[in-house]
Amino acid sequence: MTDSLIDLRSDTVTRPTPAMLEAMFRAPVGDDVYDEDPTVRALEQEAAARFGLEAGLFCPSGTMTNQIAIKAHTEPLSEVICEQNSHIYLWEVGGIAFHSGASVALLPGRQGRLTAAQVETAIRPVNIHYPTTSLISLENTHNRGGGSCYDLADIAAIAEVAQRHSIPLHLDGARIFNALVATSQDAAEYGRLFDTISVCLSKGLGAPVGSVLLGSKQFIQKTKRIRKVMGGGMRQAGYLAAAGLYALENNVDRLADDHRRARQLGSTLAAQPYVAEVLPVETNLVIFRLQDTLPAEQFLSHLEQQGIKASSFGPQMIRFVTHLDVDDAKISRVEEVLGTMGQ
Amino acid sequence: MTDSLIDLRSDTVTRPTPAMLEAMFRAPVGDDVYDEDPTVRALEQEAAARFGLEAGLFCPSGTMTNQIAIKAHTEPLSEVICEQNSHIYLWEVGGIAFHSGASVALLPGRQGRLTAAQVETAIRPVNIHYPTTSLISLENTHNRGGGSCYDLADIAAIAEVAQRHSIPLHLDGARIFNALVATSQDAAEYGRLFDTISVCLSKGLGAPVGSVLLGSKQFIQKTKRIRKVMGGGMRQAGYLAAAGLYALENNVDRLADDHRRARQLGSTLAAQPYVAEVLPVETNLVIFRLQDTLPAEQFLSHLEQQGIKASSFGPQMIRFVTHLDVDDAKISRVEEVLGTMGQ
Amino acid sequence: MTDSLIDLRSDTVTRPTPAMLEAMFRAPVGDDVYDEDPTVRALEQEAAARFGLEAGLFCPSGTMTNQIAIKAHTEPLSEVICEQNSHIYLWEVGGIAFHSGASVALLPGRQGRLTAAQVETAIRPVNIHYPTTSLISLENTHNRGGGSCYDLADIAAIAEVAQRHSIPLHLDGARIFNALVATSQDAAEYGRLFDTISVCLSKGLGAPVGSVLLGSKQFIQKTKRIRKVMGGGMRQAGYLAAAGLYALENNVDRLADDHRRARQLGSTLAAQPYVAEVLPVETNLVIFRLQDTLPAEQFLSHLEQQGIKASSFGPQMIRFVTHLDVDDAKISRVEEVLGTMGQ
Amino acid sequence: MTDSLIDLRSDTVTRPTPAMLEAMFRAPVGDDVYDEDPTVRALEQEAAARFGLEAGLFCPSGTMTNQIAIKAHTEPLSEVICEQNSHIYLWEVGGIAFHSGASVALLPGRQGRLTAAQVETAIRPVNIHYPTTSLISLENTHNRGGGSCYDLADIAAIAEVAQRHSIPLHLDGARIFNALVATSQDAAEYGRLFDTISVCLSKGLGAPVGSVLLGSKQFIQKTKRIRKVMGGGMRQAGYLAAAGLYALENNVDRLADDHRRARQLGSTLAAQPYVAEVLPVETNLVIFRLQDTLPAEQFLSHLEQQGIKASSFGPQMIRFVTHLDVDDAKISRVEEVLGTMGQ
Repeated sequence: MTDSLIDLRSDTVTRPTPAMLEAMFRAPVGDDVYDEDPTVRALEQEAAARFGLEAGLFCPSGTMTNQIAIKAHTEPLSEVICEQNSHIYLWEVGGIAFHSGASVALLPGRQGRLTAAQVETAIRPVNIHYPTTSLISLENTHNRGGGSCYDLADIAAIAEVAQRHSIPLHLDGARIFNALVATSQDAAEYGRLFDTISVCLSKGLGAPVGSVLLGSKQFIQKTKRIRKVMGGGMRQAGYLAAAGLYALENNVDRLADDHRRARQLGSTLAAQPYVAEVLPVETNLVIFRLQDTLPAEQFLSHLEQQGIKASSFGPQMIRFVTHLDVDDAKISRVEEVLGTMGQ
Repeated sequence: MTDSLIDLRSDTVTRPTPAMLEAMFRAPVGDDVYDEDPTVRALEQEAAARFGLEAGLFCPSGTMTNQIAIKAHTEPLSEVICEQNSHIYLWEVGGIAFHSGASVALLPGRQGRLTAAQVETAIRPVNIHYPTTSLISLENTHNRGGGSCYDLADIAAIAEVAQRHSIPLHLDGARIFNALVATSQDAAEYGRLFDTISVCLSKGLGAPVGSVLLGSKQFIQKTKRIRKVMGGGMRQAGYLAAAGLYALENNVDRLADDHRRARQLGSTLAAQPYVAEVLPVETNLVIFRLQDTLPAEQFLSHLEQQGIKASSFGPQMIRFVTHLDVDDAKISRVEEVLGTMGQ
Repeated sequence: MTDSLIDLRSDTVTRPTPAMLEAMFRAPVGDDVYDEDPTVRALEQEAAARFGLEAGLFCPSGTMTNQIAIKAHTEPLSEVICEQNSHIYLWEVGGIAFHSGASVALLPGRQGRLTAAQVETAIRPVNIHYPTTSLISLENTHNRGGGSCYDLADIAAIAEVAQRHSIPLHLDGARIFNALVATSQDAAEYGRLFDTISVCLSKGLGAPVGSVLLGSKQFIQKTKRIRKVMGGGMRQAGYLAAAGLYALENNVDRLADDHRRARQLGSTLAAQPYVAEVLPVETNLVIFRLQDTLPAEQFLSHLEQQGIKASSFGPQMIRFVTHLDVDDAKISRVEEVLGTMGQ
Repeated sequence: MTDSLIDLRSDTVTRPTPAMLEAMFRAPVGDDVYDEDPTVRALEQEAAARFGLEAGLFCPSGTMTNQIAIKAHTEPLSEVICEQNSHIYLWEVGGIAFHSGASVALLPGRQGRLTAAQVETAIRPVNIHYPTTSLISLENTHNRGGGSCYDLADIAAIAEVAQRHSIPLHLDGARIFNALVATSQDAAEYGRLFDTISVCLSKGLGAPVGSVLLGSKQFIQKTKRIRKVMGGGMRQAGYLAAAGLYALENNVDRLADDHRRARQLGSTLAAQPYVAEVLPVETNLVIFRLQDTLPAEQFLSHLEQQGIKASSFGPQMIRFVTHLDVDDAKISRVEEVLGTMGQ
């Protein structure tokens, strides 16, 4: 990977800046399995505080924070309500069934967003033939929905349904900071609406590794055994946590730049004759469908020859992601390549 | 339950006729855990022979035959393709996740029927984020689809997809004899298209207890340990098997009567002002939607006062089932009650 | 199987007597999935009443009643304390791990009997590296221990440990009536000491199929969904339950005859030069070890040629079981064969 | 934690030396979920090469490498043979049942070491009541056995049994380098005897985080989906892998110093009147039993007051661990405190 490469596959590919690296290697560390790593503790507390929740659990990936939350909220013979294209169902290797022995109620969202009415209808009545609804999980921004954001009022309506039925509400917030920046919502409001939140540090925030699961003290205490059995108990993890702390302090506001660049790419794509449709660009993801006359493989291969990487996202669907390592010059270069492509 | 009661809730409520009872209690039996019950063996062989498959496994319920088949075909971190309202997903307590740790790909069918194109699209590509598609399961007749039947050509097209991708194909044949009788299809054709078939004896066939799982000798051998761990290893089960054998010999053709009666009820219902819609009646199930002005509870309660039991089947949806214990006189009585109801 | 065969393999091989068959044949039945089978209800209530517990759940096998109890008492990441040769661990296909995702703490018993001190030591302290102890399970009589019986005082001491640590106590009572008859203990005392009891009807009691799980109303209510997902929801199961009811009324006291006959066989075996050791005979099981000079296969094969079946029970170990279908004449015949064998 | 603290609880508590930190800081990284982190690849290849195996998988913990190996080798309804005090059974939260739905056959080892005869006896015969033996797992050095080492001949005999029965053989090599250094065995010999090996970098080797699972290319390919679902897919994990590479190059031979210091502590302890027994010291673990007159809590509390931390290891049992951060001066200080304690 040389500097000239433009990698639009995912915001996970970023590498730490020198300042972040510096923060990592100056971090005080300890054995986190003994709860003795001061930097891990600081990150868990800082992340929890931002969202108005009591405690946090640092884990090596967002898949782990999501799957731990699902395991801790559910039991076998229960069911999780989620969107039919949500990451926890679609891209976590069937982990809901694997780890938790739980069934799924899959709802079709509008660009990944569910409504309170949909959620309420999906709650299973009491019947020995049915699993018990044990969890409602939302995703914001919604990856497959093109980085779409929820209105807080819509979340609040779902939270009201959840509370009325005594069902916990989890947020897969892999890209929650993109949603917060794009909508100017208040992070602390999320802590009031959700029981647990999974926050990722290694996507738009640019840290190399790690996610934090947030919830009540009692809930997080319960999750430590689950993290242990899943193999997420790390020793001197403070080096990774330090990058997360640095990212929280320095890389949140700048997500607005990623969003501006994504919108710019979206406009350029919408103007190309070989593009059939571009999903509304709300944050840093640009998902678009190619005309049937241009096979996706051919499109991706042409980009690759020009030093640009992107992801296939279903038949004729392509995803571009903007992030820390894609500046305006690179965006211009991508636009240039896109413009000459139909010729 | 007196004889005057008319029970339309399900075809599972039938009680053995004297002739069936006689067959049960004359049956030679042995310890089936040691493979020594001659009547169980005879039933397993007879059922397998009808469908052109090699071997059978007698179990205490259709849920067990389905869940054993799913467990034997799949492994954790894999995925089962089925219709979104299929019995194996909707009414078996989330058993796919519970027993098999497998995920589900849920497809919307036309009255429960899938197409080959739908199935093929749902097969997961190779990717470490995805479970592996390990099983395709169909249901015929389809309960939630109103007792709808597949055309053999449509099944054959799905079987072709399954074979091309080396994915086994299972049939939940809880009411397969209703489908065979309604469409005049050949049972042996099913053994050519499906790897495994679950056949229920205690629904339309009128036996008190039991289902048989059919497949190759090797497959059935493998399922014996799964039946054991699920607690389905019965000792002198021949008494139950004898009823199944009697039912196969005596109660198949008469299903045509149940179908005729169901159509009759369907026509009567369609003529009532308080009925908004009746699903096409193809076999012995009549599923209909009440107008919003008539709450389902009120409708069912009125029927109950007249000695008629039926099942709620979702908001404003009702299911009537015809079976061995509902003769023409009872149908007339139901029509009479339905006719006076709107008044 | 002809009448002349002497089957000492297990007390599961018995076939109903004409009187039991008659009781089955006359039983009123209904759909037990709808809780409407009067004979099943009567059996569940009668069995519960005998042991001073509130409710019962009829199931097709003792493996199912045990595994349902374990599932209902535990959750994944917990641990079951049991004897290292207990049936629930050794002969139920690893069901504790399979159904419940639970670990096992295996203790060596004295002929299968644990002590309160052993049990208390095995309770896991709180530590994120450990599963949580969620269940203690005893077996009485103990199969692998040679049909050995617990003293009530020893059970009471274990129950005290269980209560002090708030851990439920389950009894695998596959042969509990043998223990009650052999020790003149009071069944109701068991309901005071155990939270749940699994009682088998198809072993010494001579019913063809079935076991009953006993516990509190709340517990049994919870188990219905588990029985459903395991496939144990049967329809007109009253025919089987009627045999169980008959057995409870008629076949308990006569177990004393089985015990007398087993002791007789034990004495005869102890006198044979080719027998190295006979476990103390307390009930209807006779477990003995052959001298190394007589291979077990040769011994069993010789018996088989004389029309006598028995079970291998580990290297050089053999098990004889007395039961309803083995009368004094058959015992004499076995003794005769044993006596001529060394010659 | 100040420098004056002497932490004998575990070799996991070490913090990187400046040189190791420097190596981490300079490491080239990429997105390892896309298989693009060059440092992770280099570590996986180097570790595999040392043990004569084809491929490696870097994971955040030794629990994860063990549990992934167990999951990949087994399937539900199977059984793992291991020592009754092995780490995979005793300290991994019941993960064998949780992740793999597999049962355990627990054998008593001599200080944790099994014999080929024991292993062969524990292999389950074919029987529908039994799980299938799917894995044999050894631990070397054995933690609970006091850091004991296997003779290669004993491992070879077990490997012969495994191969004859076509059962894979796994090594929990959390402290395998301690064994190699203590016995002068050849690492490559292990690759010939074991199918898979779990190697830990964050114990005696002194890296902050991480373990590597080693096996054939095909096996490691299969484990990537399992690592993903367990949440072990990390992004720019090269910073951690760099520490592991540094440790392999620089911190193996020096383990001899830890062993010498452990022996020294063992001798001192054996001379104390309040010590009842010291397990043979073969590597860097010293496990000893206090006289009943000295409660373990009092002993540990006294040490703690003197700035020395150690671990309770069962009733009256204590574990001391020597490692990179415990030099000769600290050992002398510990001996001084031990010597004055009985007074």
